[in-house]
Amino acid sequence: MRTHNAVNSSASLHLTSVPTALGGPIAPSRGALRPLGLGDVTITGGLWGRMQELNADVIIDHCLGWMERIGWIANFDRASGAASGEHAGIEFVDSEVYKLLEAMAWELGRRPDAALEARYRAIVSRVAAAQDDDGYLHTSFGRAGQRPRYSDLEWGHELYCHGHLIQAAVARLRTGHDDELPAIARRLADHLHAEFGPDGRTAVCGHPEIEVALAEFARATGEARYLELARLFVERRGHGNLATTLFQGHEYFQDDVPVREAEVLRGHAVRALYLSAGAVDIAVETGDDELLAAVEAQYLRTIARRSYLTGGVGAHHQNEEFGDDFELPSDRAYAETCAAIASVMLSWRLLMQTGDAGYADQIERTLLNAVLVSPRADGRAFYYANTLHQRTAGVATDDDELSERAEASMRAPWFEVSCCPTNVARTLASVAGYFATTDGDGVQLHQYGSYTVDTTLDDGERFALRVESEYPNDGSVRVVVLAAPARLVHVSLRIPAWAHGRAEVAVTGAGSDSLPGRTTVATEGVFTLQRSFSAGDVMELRLPLEPRFSRAHPRVDAVRGQAAVERGPLVLALEDVDLPDGIDVEHVELDPTFAPVDDGDGAIVRLRHRTAPEDAWAYAPAATGFGELFTAKLRPYKDWANRGPSTMRVWMPVSGG
Amino acid sequence: MRTHNAVNSSASLHLTSVPTALGGPIAPSRGALRPLGLGDVTITGGLWGRMQELNADVIIDHCLGWMERIGWIANFDRASGAASGEHAGIEFVDSEVYKLLEAMAWELGRRPDAALEARYRAIVSRVAAAQDDDGYLHTSFGRAGQRPRYSDLEWGHELYCHGHLIQAAVARLRTGHDDELPAIARRLADHLHAEFGPDGRTAVCGHPEIEVALAEFARATGEARYLELARLFVERRGHGNLATTLFQGHEYFQDDVPVREAEVLRGHAVRALYLSAGAVDIAVETGDDELLAAVEAQYLRTIARRSYLTGGVGAHHQNEEFGDDFELPSDRAYAETCAAIASVMLSWRLLMQTGDAGYADQIERTLLNAVLVSPRADGRAFYYANTLHQRTAGVATDDDELSERAEASMRAPWFEVSCCPTNVARTLASVAGYFATTDGDGVQLHQYGSYTVDTTLDDGERFALRVESEYPNDGSVRVVVLAAPARLVHVSLRIPAWAHGRAEVAVTGAGSDSLPGRTTVATEGVFTLQRSFSAGDVMELRLPLEPRFSRAHPRVDAVRGQAAVERGPLVLALEDVDLPDGIDVEHVELDPTFAPVDDGDGAIVRLRHRTAPEDAWAYAPAATGFGELFTAKLRPYKDWANRGPSTMRVWMPVSGG
Repeated sequence: MRTHNAVNSSASLHLTSVPTALGGPIAPSRGALRPLGLGDVTITGGLWGRMQELNADVIIDHCLGWMERIGWIANFDRASGAASGEHAGIEFVDSEVYKLLEAMAWELGRRPDAALEARYRAIVSRVAAAQDDDGYLHTSFGRAGQRPRYSDLEWGHELYCHGHLIQAAVARLRTGHDDELPAIARRLADHLHAEFGPDGRTAVCGHPEIEVALAEFARATGEARYLELARLFVERRGHGNLATTLFQGHEYFQDDVPVREAEVLRGHAVRALYLSAGAVDIAVETGDDELLAAVEAQYLRTIARRSYLTGGVGAHHQNEEFGDDFELPSDRAYAETCAAIASVMLSWRLLMQTGDAGYADQIERTLLNAVLVSPRADGRAFYYANTLHQRTAGVATDDDELSERAEASMRAPWFEVSCCPTNVARTLASVAGYFATTDGDGVQLHQYGSYTVDTTLDDGERFALRVESEYPNDGSVRVVVLAAPARLVHVSLRIPAWAHGRAEVAVTGAGSDSLPGRTTVATEGVFTLQRSFSAGDVMELRLPLEPRFSRAHPRVDAVRGQAAVERGPLVLALEDVDLPDGIDVEHVELDPTFAPVDDGDGAIVRLRHRTAPEDAWAYAPAATGFGELFTAKLRPYKDWANRGPSTMRVWMPVSGG
Repeated sequence: MRTHNAVNSSASLHLTSVPTALGGPIAPSRGALRPLGLGDVTITGGLWGRMQELNADVIIDHCLGWMERIGWIANFDRASGAASGEHAGIEFVDSEVYKLLEAMAWELGRRPDAALEARYRAIVSRVAAAQDDDGYLHTSFGRAGQRPRYSDLEWGHELYCHGHLIQAAVARLRTGHDDELPAIARRLADHLHAEFGPDGRTAVCGHPEIEVALAEFARATGEARYLELARLFVERRGHGNLATTLFQGHEYFQDDVPVREAEVLRGHAVRALYLSAGAVDIAVETGDDELLAAVEAQYLRTIARRSYLTGGVGAHHQNEEFGDDFELPSDRAYAETCAAIASVMLSWRLLMQTGDAGYADQIERTLLNAVLVSPRADGRAFYYANTLHQRTAGVATDDDELSERAEASMRAPWFEVSCCPTNVARTLASVAGYFATTDGDGVQLHQYGSYTVDTTLDDGERFALRVESEYPNDGSVRVVVLAAPARLVHVSLRIPAWAHGRAEVAVTGAGSDSLPGRTTVATEGVFTLQRSFSAGDVMELRLPLEPRFSRAHPRVDAVRGQAAVERGPLVLALEDVDLPDGIDVEHVELDPTFAPVDDGDGAIVRLRHRTAPEDAWAYAPAATGFGELFTAKLRPYKDWANRGPSTMRVWMPVSGG
């Protein structure tokens, strides 16, 4: 066991006081790009518009309904003495209430609604009543009959819950309200600073989250002490001080190696990613470029070697952990929804720092495949783990039954550990925050769909665009200038990696002489047009969505001899409901000589039925039989299992290897 | 949740009173074949002789030393009041003491030794002192400060521990001693019958083991009540009565479907196999052929679809469970040593009932690969989980340090849950019991090596053979008749499936006119010679050990496009210590055009170095580079990681798919 426990304190804090301001999920004080907040970017339709409607109309209510029904919100009433009875649920269910409050705050910022506001305030009041006089707030520790505060830092998740409360307060501040929840969060953060700060105990929470929350809260409030505490939590980690168990070692907790010395993300995926996101925030605000570079290098290696085609991460069910490099089984992909969301959080932070469009590519891939696969089409059930290969048809879940386990083969309405539904809710409510940025002199469009950008550049001039697209179903993206300064400014369009060399841009309008006709964009990841724009100018981006075969790196043993099909940013999947009767996805091979054909929202491929005796020794030569070739449709992975239980696979064996 | 809880009681007991008699691990009262006990089969040398020496000289002492050192044996002193202090270790460590007592009993039966006998008796006395007046015996339940008896049937493992105590008593009875431990076991079994029998609570233990133990104890003592209790435990299972958790569902406990209705083994592998072994014993002794057929069908499907090339079973680290059909990842193979041993237990029972040599093949494969891989060459460290693919060099374990986790990448000296070392010890001590059988009119030789068979046929005549072989290193097996009745009797030699059509038998001696010269054996799994044997007659079996490529069923996605090499019954593996400097097993491909060349204890194959960029997106076309072809040696899988940490793989990517 490591005994070294020194805390690196070389980085000095230089957080500038940040006034409470409208914004999105993060607000770094420096970087290549700056986020545009939810006040500047408004989703108006398309896929993301429909998802936000589903969130507003169904998912948030669904989460609220379940948490009232099973007493997770009432835990606060019990804690405040307003109700009696035992604490309901596992010890960290407070965090689900907080993530839902965060979702509601973003939703209210996006579209104020008196009824939702009233419901929001009512819950906040119940939370407020449970706060202790010294600022501590947790419903399952510290009261009569409960374990003492901070008596189980490894597993109690107290600071994890605190972090989510603080994140909910950040969302409230960034949507223009410095009211009750931010006040609760300040009292809590002050308590934490006293308890765990420079003069407090040198401990960390088993599940990171407080780091990223405190860093953002420092940004949102201008309070440097919160950043300092976040920095201490990051620096204290990696010295083997969290107690390990039969099943969880130091690596599980990211307590094996200090953050700045690690080479790759490892251990529990959500923990690793939340910690990394916090480390980036702290590095940015303290000028700790060594730490920033370390986290970026770890994440790049993680993307390159430890992520699925969908962007999902965390290959192991056991401990919800990353696997080894290139250990990426399709059938045992854990690829937790929350890990995908955490990956988006980290990608976004690194995009702001570096301006590297590869991070925006990763956000797109992850959001569209690894996150959107979670909610069922009706928004009333969710995947927690996201396999890429379902060998046997799933078991239909009861929409009225709490799911004990994360590994339901069909989406479940709620889980005993239900981190994913509320994480989806807060992500959907704030997703516009990941669409566009500014560098002060122009606007960068990172994600496509139907939305408006209406912001003020550094010179105080308004720059407004309308983006129109049915992307990712359609590859056309139309950007209409609504208002622009009377000077040279620029608009940058991300060109996804799969479109390099094949994307086209056409510009029309008053200033179109600078770029006549249609232009094929070369292999760069960003197309930038600098000109003096006029209202009515139009940029038309055409991205080639023709479906394509994808093959994996030769070290990904799990999918050797297999291919997947992608259509634009969407990973497609084969479901047995799209196969002839009596054939499931376990008994087909893909014909690699037949190029997949675009079919609206999917692709047509050619397959053949394959059989071999299944009750003999599996490692002796067996006669394989093949049926006639036939065609079948692949559909977006994110939509799978919406037509009832089925078998499914993303990677298909290729005839002839 | 299932509510049906009826117990099938159609099977009637017809256990005949079995006198205490020398024997081996099991003693069924009917079947196609009958085991020869340890009094009849004596290992004299060869691989198994060396393994038994290692067990006697090192492994048993090693286990004893660790359990004294960390207080697991002293738990009995604490329970009896002879010592004070807290219970040491997890709540089911009693079972390790009992498994070691079982190993010592078999060892004493094999080769009486006064010093070992004294140590054995000393431990038994400490165990005896901890037994309660009513027969209950467990060191972590029921005393002041402990949880009440049977208050945690799902996880407490009380009856599991009881089962191992009873198995240890069976070993003592079968080696000719009806002394203190059998007496303890009788009192315990009587207590269990009162507590859980027809008039007791209708409950089962979360971890099966008591079933197989009680069935054998009934056989060894002739006490039908023990068999009846075992039958009740089997029949009560599968009705969803064990409480599930966040991570473990009914399937984990085999409590999802009644044993006689299941189609395949599933859930926790060791539990499933111990339960199945018990179910076979009960089916045999109660004439319940429906149950017998059900378990056999489940097991055949399990071998065909859910077992590794090594014979290992249990693909999931998560919950130590079986996976889906054909879900057999090499890199995440859990393949617990105990599950392999349990599989041998079940195969042996089914071999006795059916006479099907396929079960003896499976025993051979499993013992030589999935069990013998566990102990380190020096017998002082063990694998618990047995991967078939180590991507990164393991971490050397400290021979003085207790291993917290089962998943050590190198063998560890002892584990907090240390079921495997003692299971290896009891298996090695009794392994001769799996070598040969009789049908009353001759002898069947199922396993090869150097040993003698000296038994009495049903007519009371002596039949004695000496088997001489350095198998599996050498394919020659010489069977010399030492004594035979003056009438027609038969000797059967198993012909492993991989040798069908290529094995040869030559017979010499007085009666050799019946089978002149050398004969190639056809594709049958057994070669039987019936004749009037004379002392000095010799049968020479020659098994072709030339190494061969093995490929997997096309549904085993994990090893698509890969091949393994087997040499006789041994699975071979590639370790990076056998590769040129700078090349590990992650960066080679196998040349399938070069037939593997026999090289004594291994095989020479031709490989080439393969590289591809590892820090780019893993799902975009990447240029793969290949080095020169070179040859390298594969060695037996069971011996891997005996030369320091290394990378290893059984399945190798094949050039060109």
